[in-house]
Amino acid sequence: MTETATLYGPVAADIPAVGERLRAIAVGHHPLLGETLAHVFRTSGKQLRPALVMLSGKLGTYHRDRLVTLAASLEVVHTATLVHDDTIDQALSRRGLSTVNAVWDGKVAILIGDFLFAQSAFLAALLDSVPVMRLLSETVMAMSSGELQQYASSRQGMIDEADYLERIAGKTASLFAMCCAGAGIVSEQGPDAVEALRRYGTNLGLAFQIADDVLDFTGDEAVLGKPAGGDLRQGTATLPLILYARSQSGNGLDLSSVRESGDLDLLVAEVRASSAPARALERAHEYAEAARAALAVFDPSEAKDALVHLTQHVVERQR
Amino acid sequence: MTETATLYGPVAADIPAVGERLRAIAVGHHPLLGETLAHVFRTSGKQLRPALVMLSGKLGTYHRDRLVTLAASLEVVHTATLVHDDTIDQALSRRGLSTVNAVWDGKVAILIGDFLFAQSAFLAALLDSVPVMRLLSETVMAMSSGELQQYASSRQGMIDEADYLERIAGKTASLFAMCCAGAGIVSEQGPDAVEALRRYGTNLGLAFQIADDVLDFTGDEAVLGKPAGGDLRQGTATLPLILYARSQSGNGLDLSSVRESGDLDLLVAEVRASSAPARALERAHEYAEAARAALAVFDPSEAKDALVHLTQHVVERQR
Repeated sequence: MTETATLYGPVAADIPAVGERLRAIAVGHHPLLGETLAHVFRTSGKQLRPALVMLSGKLGTYHRDRLVTLAASLEVVHTATLVHDDTIDQALSRRGLSTVNAVWDGKVAILIGDFLFAQSAFLAALLDSVPVMRLLSETVMAMSSGELQQYASSRQGMIDEADYLERIAGKTASLFAMCCAGAGIVSEQGPDAVEALRRYGTNLGLAFQIADDVLDFTGDEAVLGKPAGGDLRQGTATLPLILYARSQSGNGLDLSSVRESGDLDLLVAEVRASSAPARALERAHEYAEAARAALAVFDPSEAKDALVHLTQHVVERQR
Repeated sequence: MTETATLYGPVAADIPAVGERLRAIAVGHHPLLGETLAHVFRTSGKQLRPALVMLSGKLGTYHRDRLVTLAASLEVVHTATLVHDDTIDQALSRRGLSTVNAVWDGKVAILIGDFLFAQSAFLAALLDSVPVMRLLSETVMAMSSGELQQYASSRQGMIDEADYLERIAGKTASLFAMCCAGAGIVSEQGPDAVEALRRYGTNLGLAFQIADDVLDFTGDEAVLGKPAGGDLRQGTATLPLILYARSQSGNGLDLSSVRESGDLDLLVAEVRASSAPARALERAHEYAEAARAALAVFDPSEAKDALVHLTQHVVERQR
């Protein structure tokens, strides 16, 4: 809570209302649905997306309840994708809690994810804004398209930077952009401000995901709670690996042949020891800088300061 | 096509436009997404839902293109649920075509289903109507909730008529109701007409699903292309079994113990030979009659005649 209070400054007090909206969703259903929904909303993570909604809304007319509704809708989208991702990856735990596919099974997890996507649209419809709903549908299309592309790439052992950027733009940055631009619409900001928020969110999302992918290689295994190089072990080529491969042999590294030969531990160690993670993090800093630049159109305010500070936080965090 | 022309009378000529909209969705994506979308829209089934949209719209101001957009949106929802259902059931073919999970795998099928749910919302957003979008989100929530309830019931070997009706109301009738009521909104009909269309769609959907469940027991296996009693074999208790069980022992049949003892062939044969399928079909006729009654508020027209005729067709069809 202390970290949240510092990071989310002027909106920190309104963030818990988002969690309350989420837990209210679980009430009034048949037992299996109610229990599963209560389970997925039990923990709440860092609340970065709700904070982006509330801070972006603070730059305009701060309709607190409507912004909480938008934040809840987008947190539900995020949760739906996590439930389906965990099903796809057959992951057993997330944020220290068993996954839906682990507690129940993959069938329940698919249906709960579907319910959550619809629930997010239902919450967004309460805002009575067709532009927000259109943005939401485009965001979910971009997210699932990005995940599909990641999957196609990993099957082909593909190591390509343009492909990587397109993937993370879809699977991560699009929802960050939706949080900020959607809040801009709800808080009655003009088209230029909404576009600036979209650019801020997109660039922040790219910085966040690259930093995440760097941490996957360099992070303290005890802090992360998982072994280093997890993405690579799952067949996903992220930026540190891509930069490492380029420095070795001009894109000549074939990930699927490395996977087959079983030299994954060695490869992870080589990437960790190389300059590639640091160079990838530099790229994250560049996107963070672009996110800050997008905020130039806004007058000084506490909310703007917090958004600026977040661009540093996402690339400097240790977990 | 001849059957369609007879059944869908005044809107038959506009139905192919829906398929064209669907196939257009597959264009302009990365290879895996494009190929998968082209695959799922290759065949089109009986087009009952698009016909319900166009016929219901014909009772009001017939905005052909807007109704085609709504029909496409709802056919995309239907397709999304089929893709996820096939993944859950690990089905290998549908409508004579390999399923997404069979051609690719369950991971791709989950993500394509998610993309399709978002695509349906995107199409619906083109109609610029928050009530339509709200209805759509409520419909998808009801559908996934109904499927979850069916799954919970089948695991418990539950044989209960109220539970059955709630399940099929969610998983089938809600989308039929959305087709009719959504078209009522788009064709600028008043609240009473929209409510009448919702009741028509709900009752037609219940009649349709019960008839489907009866056919699963009594249908000609050669025509259906699958062995009789498929639902029962998958652990799902449908109305014929529920009525049979009640006539035997006052709800005393325990489906899970039958499944364990392996007497499924015998049980299917007993249900087929009993009066239960005919009694279930009577119930379907009652819902069809309720659907017809809901149409009383509308003036005579060719479209109304076609909607009336559909209430007979759904309970009398052989496949």
